[in-house]
Amino acid sequence: MEQQLSANVSRTIQTKLVLPPDTNHMGTIFGGTVLSYIDEIAAIAAMKHSKKVVVTASIDNVNFLSSAKVGDILILEGVVISTGRTSMEVYVKVECQNLETGNRTLNTTSILTMVAIDQNGKPFPVPSVIPETEEEVAFFKGAPLRKERRLLYKNVTGTL
Amino acid sequence: MEQQLSANVSRTIQTKLVLPPDTNHMGTIFGGTVLSYIDEIAAIAAMKHSKKVVVTASIDNVNFLSSAKVGDILILEGVVISTGRTSMEVYVKVECQNLETGNRTLNTTSILTMVAIDQNGKPFPVPSVIPETEEEVAFFKGAPLRKERRLLYKNVTGTL
Amino acid sequence: MEQQLSANVSRTIQTKLVLPPDTNHMGTIFGGTVLSYIDEIAAIAAMKHSKKVVVTASIDNVNFLSSAKVGDILILEGVVISTGRTSMEVYVKVECQNLETGNRTLNTTSILTMVAIDQNGKPFPVPSVIPETEEEVAFFKGAPLRKERRLLYKNVTGTL
Amino acid sequence: MEQQLSANVSRTIQTKLVLPPDTNHMGTIFGGTVLSYIDEIAAIAAMKHSKKVVVTASIDNVNFLSSAKVGDILILEGVVISTGRTSMEVYVKVECQNLETGNRTLNTTSILTMVAIDQNGKPFPVPSVIPETEEEVAFFKGAPLRKERRLLYKNVTGTL
Amino acid sequence: MEQQLSANVSRTIQTKLVLPPDTNHMGTIFGGTVLSYIDEIAAIAAMKHSKKVVVTASIDNVNFLSSAKVGDILILEGVVISTGRTSMEVYVKVECQNLETGNRTLNTTSILTMVAIDQNGKPFPVPSVIPETEEEVAFFKGAPLRKERRLLYKNVTGTL
Amino acid sequence: MEQQLSANVSRTIQTKLVLPPDTNHMGTIFGGTVLSYIDEIAAIAAMKHSKKVVVTASIDNVNFLSSAKVGDILILEGVVISTGRTSMEVYVKVECQNLETGNRTLNTTSILTMVAIDQNGKPFPVPSVIPETEEEVAFFKGAPLRKERRLLYKNVTGTL
Ligand SMILES: CC(C)(COP(=O)(O)OP(=O)(O)OC[C@H]1O[C@@H](n2cnc3c(N)ncnc32)[C@H](O)[C@@H]1OP(=O)(O)O)[C@@H](O)C(=O)NCCC(=O)NCCS
Ligand SMILES: CC(C)(COP(=O)(O)OP(=O)(O)OC[C@H]1O[C@@H](n2cnc3c(N)ncnc32)[C@H](O)[C@@H]1OP(=O)(O)O)[C@@H](O)C(=O)NCCC(=O)NCCS
Ligand SMILES: CC(C)(COP(=O)(O)OP(=O)(O)OC[C@H]1O[C@@H](n2cnc3c(N)ncnc32)[C@H](O)[C@@H]1OP(=O)(O)O)[C@@H](O)C(=O)NCCC(=O)NCCS
Ligand SMILES: CC(C)(COP(=O)(O)OP(=O)(O)OC[C@H]1O[C@@H](n2cnc3c(N)ncnc32)[C@H](O)[C@@H]1OP(=O)(O)O)[C@@H](O)C(=O)NCCC(=O)NCCS
Repeated sequence: MEQQLSANVSRTIQTKLVLPPDTNHMGTIFGGTVLSYIDEIAAIAAMKHSKKVVVTASIDNVNFLSSAKVGDILILEGVVISTGRTSMEVYVKVECQNLETGNRTLNTTSILTMVAIDQNGKPFPVPSVIPETEEEVAFFKGAPLRKERRLLYKNVTGTL
Repeated sequence: MEQQLSANVSRTIQTKLVLPPDTNHMGTIFGGTVLSYIDEIAAIAAMKHSKKVVVTASIDNVNFLSSAKVGDILILEGVVISTGRTSMEVYVKVECQNLETGNRTLNTTSILTMVAIDQNGKPFPVPSVIPETEEEVAFFKGAPLRKERRLLYKNVTGTL
Repeated sequence: MEQQLSANVSRTIQTKLVLPPDTNHMGTIFGGTVLSYIDEIAAIAAMKHSKKVVVTASIDNVNFLSSAKVGDILILEGVVISTGRTSMEVYVKVECQNLETGNRTLNTTSILTMVAIDQNGKPFPVPSVIPETEEEVAFFKGAPLRKERRLLYKNVTGTL
Repeated sequence: MEQQLSANVSRTIQTKLVLPPDTNHMGTIFGGTVLSYIDEIAAIAAMKHSKKVVVTASIDNVNFLSSAKVGDILILEGVVISTGRTSMEVYVKVECQNLETGNRTLNTTSILTMVAIDQNGKPFPVPSVIPETEEEVAFFKGAPLRKERRLLYKNVTGTL
Repeated sequence: MEQQLSANVSRTIQTKLVLPPDTNHMGTIFGGTVLSYIDEIAAIAAMKHSKKVVVTASIDNVNFLSSAKVGDILILEGVVISTGRTSMEVYVKVECQNLETGNRTLNTTSILTMVAIDQNGKPFPVPSVIPETEEEVAFFKGAPLRKERRLLYKNVTGTL
Repeated sequence: MEQQLSANVSRTIQTKLVLPPDTNHMGTIFGGTVLSYIDEIAAIAAMKHSKKVVVTASIDNVNFLSSAKVGDILILEGVVISTGRTSMEVYVKVECQNLETGNRTLNTTSILTMVAIDQNGKPFPVPSVIPETEEEVAFFKGAPLRKERRLLYKNVTGTL
């Protein structure tokens, strides 16, 4: 196994045309459709990094800042931003491009934790990642804080 | 508009058979498939409560505690647990029933915020909710804390 | 194998939002979409009862009493109402809830015969069922009559 | 409106390859998939005959005589066999062709009643049909008997 | 293996109703949807001829002469028109029938080369074909010319 | 309307995971699935360039040089390489990346002609394109030759 891989190995781009079946009566895309796109690109990015089948362990909370309508183009980018022993954090950015104006607006961002598994479905060690862009370096450094925050989040309420 | 509705009005149940197209090579369901089921049931519950079209404003973080395999049955339950002026918190529980043993295990839980919209896509006021079960009462009381926590979450890191 | 199971073991609920891809140009759901929903819930109910894979042996005639439109919510309930040696009769009720009014109308009812099969695709014995509600008791008692009627139906015309 | 149309106007053929998403774990096609194919071809046949959008009023009972497996080819034929004022009876035959042997076996037959509707969703008069093959002539003659039988069926049991 | 098979063995017909999910915002069918229908019918025709699983080796250029709209009916016909050792040329014709007028217009035609493969994915010999209609005889005779033309096409430009 | 746009405006990337529903019994992707991916990316690239809805006028012949299996990753790139008054040539390259080795092989290339249309479905003028990479410059120069070749192709045989 290679010990270290550049973030570029996992970087993945998707471009999706918003079509009627993906939307409600008002032509606005379903949150669930965007969530499944986010999970799909996170899985591909993590598979490229680990060269293994992966499963989704968790997705951090997602705020939908703006909506996308029929005829818009969604552009997704996914990249591994930090790694544990068998898990990988994947950062996914979703932008929406209006066809007529060409303008892009941020739709949402999300961080997912994906785990590599072997043939028996057991977690399998992954190479570590070398962040490339400035943003990725910041994400890389923030990983311990996010881990802590997820714990905090679990402890604040017993209800969930 | 009715001012108050029992949680029973929005309570919604789904039963899904896990089929090969929903799974990876190892027969394990994709996280994205479960996320889109969660969003779908949250939307139906919120529509029943508000009698309006709704959009997903956010989904709190989701931990996948156990997986589901081809041939398993997923049972989802969604219910409105608290309301703001135009927004509704929907609690979704996902359980997985093994066909052969009949055993049910908790797959995941999630809280989504759905916003009712009018014909022009503008947020529209919703009735408030009267929790029914003990669990729902607890969730109802926890709403302000969760709102705060979401803010905290936003402030802890500037990165997301 | 348990010898007798309550009808509650197989009782299954589905809630479906009617979306544009399920409908014709006039926004009315296709009969074929409803039929496939009916078969799906009958299969899940019969699998819960028999803890086996099942196949559809027959579906009694179905009258579509009213239609469902985009934005309506379909609520399906399926339950095993009688059993033979390897076959199970499943009763499926389909109701349609209008979003704005909250009114429910009966869409259709149907009785399917599902057969449990083993790994080699051979019919496999199933537990018998104990009906719970009054309606289910009536269905349970009507089983021999329905069997006879199906025979009658076959004999009346040689054409089919 | 043309007053009489040959059955050949509505005759419609479909050929479907059975693929994994259409089947259960054992590679056997779902009854619901076949039912939705049957409804689709009945709708196309009735639309060709009436030159109108149609809805499914009823489907007579369906016996699945044999199953179809992944890799098999399903051949469906649909034809209008009798007409009322606004309704059309469509006969659908489903055969299954094994790829390796080329043998065809009868999978099922079914009779559906489709109703032509105008822009407001109201039943609309349809041309009558002139049966062509011997089988179609027999079906044509059997129409009143089938209507009676459907009534009988409704009256025999109050339960459904 | 039978040495020679009539073109009738492979002749395959499909009838498709154009539905909203197959079309763009203006209700016009996507080229990609038609291309996947063409490939599907070519595969079925070639499988009927060879009694083997087949893969698509190439598709000759396709001109979309007219478009199809929501509510139109597409009628596809596929037939093996010539064979090599392991490859089959399949001719596919796509016509579009307007529901209201009943008029048929030619949508497109295409010739695909399908290759029969054995369990190990290796090309496998196929029976030769006896053309039936006049058109098929002409196609049969044109096979060497088309092969040459494909070569010419490859040589004219190095770019592709 | 801007008169000239860099090829970078239309450049579009897709990354697709090959899943079981996209493949035949042997786990090999259907040609039709790849063709519909090619058409989709060509449409997105042409829409980005023209800021209009587009339709597919033609696709030049496609050779499938190698296959893709379940678990492989398909990487597609589409870019406008030349323009007419209302039409755009889009070059699409499809590569297949093996998960375990990370190796990429060329699957196929294709050139499609897309036409921009206005609200009435009439062809609408498009900006011209400035090629960026060396490959794109070569394609740009080859446009008249390809046009000629398409004509030649039409004239060589009367059969198609
Ligand atoms: C959700 C949305 C309608 C809110 O619009 P807005 O202009 O911020 O409207 P308001 O400020 O009046 O907020 C409306 C309600 O949404 C709530 N809200 C807004 N953003 C939220 C978030 N990220 N999480 C939770 N609740 C949120 C507000 O608290 C408010 O609730 P209240 O009326 O109960 O007090 C808007 O952000 C949007 O359209 N997002 C995209 C939704 C979408 O299309 N999702 C599908 C996938 S993209
Ligand atoms: C259903 C099927 C398994 C029955 O097989 P069989 O060889 O006739 O087996 P048996 O005679 O032992 O019958 C098994 C049970 O099915 C019942 N059965 C058979 N045909 C039936 C029919 N048309 N309607 C209702 N019940 C039927 C029998 O009464 C028997 O019930 P019991 O064990 O409770 O007394 C077989 O006909 C089949 O495989 N059909 C296709 C099923 C399928 O694939 N459906 C999906 C769409 S094609
Ligand atoms: C079918 C439907 C349009 C009939 O409407 P209606 O108000 O009963 O209209 P009418 O009484 O004028 O009947 C119209 C025709 O339908 C026939 N019909 C009505 N119900 C029928 C049934 N259950 N089975 C067979 N034919 C039926 C009538 O006999 C009549 O035929 P005719 O004109 O040839 O004599 C109506 O019941 C309906 O909309 N049902 C739902 C259809 C649908 O949406 N199906 C998809 C899945 S829900
Ligand atoms: C088609 C394929 C099996 C040919 O394999 P190969 O190693 O070249 O095998 P061969 O040289 O023995 O050729 C087999 C036959 O295919 C024909 N063939 C190969 N490439 C072809 C092309 N681009 N166009 C037309 N025919 C072609 C050969 O002429 C030969 O025909 P014949 O036996 O009738 O004389 C191989 O190229 C392949 O697997 N391609 C991908 C197919 C696929 O998966 N398509 C789906 C989308 S990717």
